[in-house]
Amino acid sequence: MPTQDKGSHEIVEGGSVTSPLGFKACGLYCGLKKSKFPDLGAVYCEVPAAAAGVFTTNLFQAAPVLVTRDSLSREARLQAVIVNSGNANACTGQKGVEDAYAMRGRMAEALGIPAHYVAVASTGVIGELLPMDKVLSGIDQVPGRLSREGSGDFCQAIMTTDLTRKECCVRLKVDGRTVHIGGAAKGSGMIHPNMATMLGFITTDAAIEPEHLQRLLVTTTQDTFNMITVDGDTSTNDMVVVMASGLAGNSPLKPDHPDWDAFAGAFAHVLEHLAKEIARDGEGATKLLEVRVTGAKSDEAARAIAKTVLGSSLVKTAVFGADANWGRIIAAVGRAGWPVNTETVDIRIGDIVMLEQSRPVPFDEAAAAEYLKTDMIVIRIDLHDGDGQAVGWGCDLTYEYVRINAAYRT
Amino acid sequence: MPTQDKGSHEIVEGGSVTSPLGFKACGLYCGLKKSKFPDLGAVYCEVPAAAAGVFTTNLFQAAPVLVTRDSLSREARLQAVIVNSGNANACTGQKGVEDAYAMRGRMAEALGIPAHYVAVASTGVIGELLPMDKVLSGIDQVPGRLSREGSGDFCQAIMTTDLTRKECCVRLKVDGRTVHIGGAAKGSGMIHPNMATMLGFITTDAAIEPEHLQRLLVTTTQDTFNMITVDGDTSTNDMVVVMASGLAGNSPLKPDHPDWDAFAGAFAHVLEHLAKEIARDGEGATKLLEVRVTGAKSDEAARAIAKTVLGSSLVKTAVFGADANWGRIIAAVGRAGWPVNTETVDIRIGDIVMLEQSRPVPFDEAAAAEYLKTDMIVIRIDLHDGDGQAVGWGCDLTYEYVRINAAYRT
Repeated sequence: MPTQDKGSHEIVEGGSVTSPLGFKACGLYCGLKKSKFPDLGAVYCEVPAAAAGVFTTNLFQAAPVLVTRDSLSREARLQAVIVNSGNANACTGQKGVEDAYAMRGRMAEALGIPAHYVAVASTGVIGELLPMDKVLSGIDQVPGRLSREGSGDFCQAIMTTDLTRKECCVRLKVDGRTVHIGGAAKGSGMIHPNMATMLGFITTDAAIEPEHLQRLLVTTTQDTFNMITVDGDTSTNDMVVVMASGLAGNSPLKPDHPDWDAFAGAFAHVLEHLAKEIARDGEGATKLLEVRVTGAKSDEAARAIAKTVLGSSLVKTAVFGADANWGRIIAAVGRAGWPVNTETVDIRIGDIVMLEQSRPVPFDEAAAAEYLKTDMIVIRIDLHDGDGQAVGWGCDLTYEYVRINAAYRT
Repeated sequence: MPTQDKGSHEIVEGGSVTSPLGFKACGLYCGLKKSKFPDLGAVYCEVPAAAAGVFTTNLFQAAPVLVTRDSLSREARLQAVIVNSGNANACTGQKGVEDAYAMRGRMAEALGIPAHYVAVASTGVIGELLPMDKVLSGIDQVPGRLSREGSGDFCQAIMTTDLTRKECCVRLKVDGRTVHIGGAAKGSGMIHPNMATMLGFITTDAAIEPEHLQRLLVTTTQDTFNMITVDGDTSTNDMVVVMASGLAGNSPLKPDHPDWDAFAGAFAHVLEHLAKEIARDGEGATKLLEVRVTGAKSDEAARAIAKTVLGSSLVKTAVFGADANWGRIIAAVGRAGWPVNTETVDIRIGDIVMLEQSRPVPFDEAAAAEYLKTDMIVIRIDLHDGDGQAVGWGCDLTYEYVRINAAYRT
C-alpha cells in the first residue's frame, strides 16, 4: 500500500523536476516528430547527483535502457538525463546501441561531464534507427537552453500520445532544512506493471546515498508505477531514474534517520501522483479507475488481483459504458491466479455495495450509473480472507483507444 | 500443435451434433432473452453415452458447472445436455445451485432418464437468479421438440453475442465402419485460454470408453480451445462436454487401436474448427488472427508466447488498423514470461519478412497493408531457440468490441 500522506510534506504548486536545488531542464524540437512539438529533453544537475534507476522487465531491452544501466553501474551518480521522443531506438541492433552511446557521449561532451554521468532514454516507434544528425544537433543546443524554467518544455518533449504534462513537486523538512522532491513522467499506451511501463524522472535536493535511494525507489515503485495498467502491454524502453543533488544540506538520509519516514512518504506521494496521472491519461481514457483490494491472503495476492481487475477489457469497457457490471469484476478476481475464498467477497463501486459475502445485493441502478459517469471511479474488493491489501490504477477502454492504436504508426 | 489433417477423415457438409447416430437436438424460446431468439437448447442421446468434460479454471465456478461436474463424476455417462443462454446462473449462491439441480432434475424427469445422465450449462449475465418458472416450462417442451434436424435451433439457443452459428461434423472409418464426430459451440466475449472460455458440445457415434475420451478431450483442448483468446477474460461458466453413443458399432477406441490416430486427428479437426470459428466471431472482430510460434524452448513456452501476442491490445488494434507494426509483436514476445534468445527472432506477417535474426528487414509497406486488410491474418514467429511450437487464434480489437461491451448489460 502507498505510504499514507502523513501531512509532513506539502505540495509545491506548479513545482516540477527543477524545483529541487541544483536542477535545470529544457525541451526542444530536433526533428523526430512530425508534429513539430518538442522531441528532445534534458534534465541537468549542477553537481554529480546520487542516482538510482528501475527498468523494463521486457526481454527486448531498448538500446537506451542498456546504456543507462551501464551509466548507473559505474558510480551510481548522474548529472544529466537526455531523452528523445518519436523513436524508441528499440530492436535496432548494434547500430542502435552505438547510437545510444553516441547520444550519451555527445551530451557529456556538451556539458563537460564524464560520459557515465549521463542517462539516456527514448520513447516512440520500435525498430527504426534514429536520425542521428538531427539528434546530435539537438543535443548540442541543450547547454544553451537549460534553465530552472525549462521543466514545462522538458515534460512536453518526453510526451508521445500523452495529452497532458505529468509533473509535480512536494517539499518537507529534513533536519529542519527544506527538501524538495520533484518528478516528471510520460505514459499513455503500453503501460503495465512490472515496471516496464513509462518514463519517469525524479529529482531531489535531499542528501541520500545511492544504495538507500535505489532501495527506496524499488519499494516505492512496487506500490505506485507498478500498480498502473493501461493496456497490459509492457514496453521495451521504460525506466524511472532518480537524481539526488544533496544541495539541501541535510545529513544523509537513511532508514534510521529521524526524518526517513517523512521523506519516504513524500517520495511515495510524488511517484503515486505521477502514476495516477499516467493512468488517467491512458490512451483514449475518459476515467481514472482505482481498485482497492483488502482482506487478501497477502499483499502480493492483493496486487495481482487489483491488476487483473484493472486489466480486464470487460471491466474497462463496462466502466466506459457506466455499467455497474460487478459480474465482470468477480470473474476477474477469480482468474487472477491466487486462491481466494469464493464465499466471502464484498464488492463496492464507489460507496454502493454490489456483492456481500459473495451474494448479490440489490442496489440502486440509477445511482450506480450516475456515479459511473464521473471521471474517477473507485472499486473496492474486500476478500475477508487475510491482511493483504493493495491499491492500483487504470482507466476505461474506449473507442478512442482503438482509434489511436489502429493508426499509431501509419 | 494440432494434429495434422491426415486426409483420413472427411468433412460432412452441413453436419452438426445430430449427425452421429443416436443424437437429437432442439432449441426453443423460453423467455430469458429480450430478443425472443431461442434461449434454451438440448442435445439428447437415445442411449447412455460415454462422456467427458473440461471446465473453467475460474475460481468462481457457476452453478451449472458444479452440477455437470457432479453428473460426470458418477458414471461418466450422459444422455442429455440442457443449456440456457441469457443468464449465467453464476454468483447466485445456494439458490443458484438449487436451480441448476432443478434444471437437471426436470430434464431427467421429462426424458425418463437418471438425473446424473444430464449435464447443465448456462451462459449470459452473471449474478441474477434464473426465472425458474420459464426455464422449467421450457424444459417440459424439450422431449416434444427433439429431432435430428434440431441442431440449427440448438446452435442458435446457446448463442449470446455470437453473430454466427458454430457447428461442424467429420466422418471417418474405424474398423471399416463409418464414425461421425459432430460439434457445436458458442463463444464471442470473455474468451481466453485455460479452458474457461466458451461452451462446446461434441457428439460421436464411435464406441470409446470414458477414460480414453476424457484424456483425448484434455489433450486436444490444450491445442485448440485453450489456444484462442478474444479479450483475455475467463468466464465462470464455460465447459466442453463430449458424448459418445457407440452406435457406430466399432470395437472400442483406445490408444492402441489401429484407427486411434485417425480418430484423434478427426476429433482435433472438429475442436480446432470450432475454436477458430469462436475466435473469428470474437466480439466486434473483423479478422481472424493466427499466430504460429516455432523454435521455442518448449511447446509450453511457444503456447504462452503465442497467447501473449494474440492477447496484446496493441497487436490487436494494429491488425484492425492494417498496420504492420511488428514492434508491438516483439514487445509482446519479450513480456510473455518465458526466456527467449533476443538475437535470433524472425517475424513474418503473412509471407512478408519483417524481422530476421532480431533485425528489421526493409519490406513493402503497401503490400503489407494490403495483406492486413484481408480477413485472415497469419503472424509467424520463429525464435530459432529450440523445437517448441504452437498455433493459436484470436481476432482484432475494434470500435465494435468497445460498443458491445460498454452496453452489454444495460
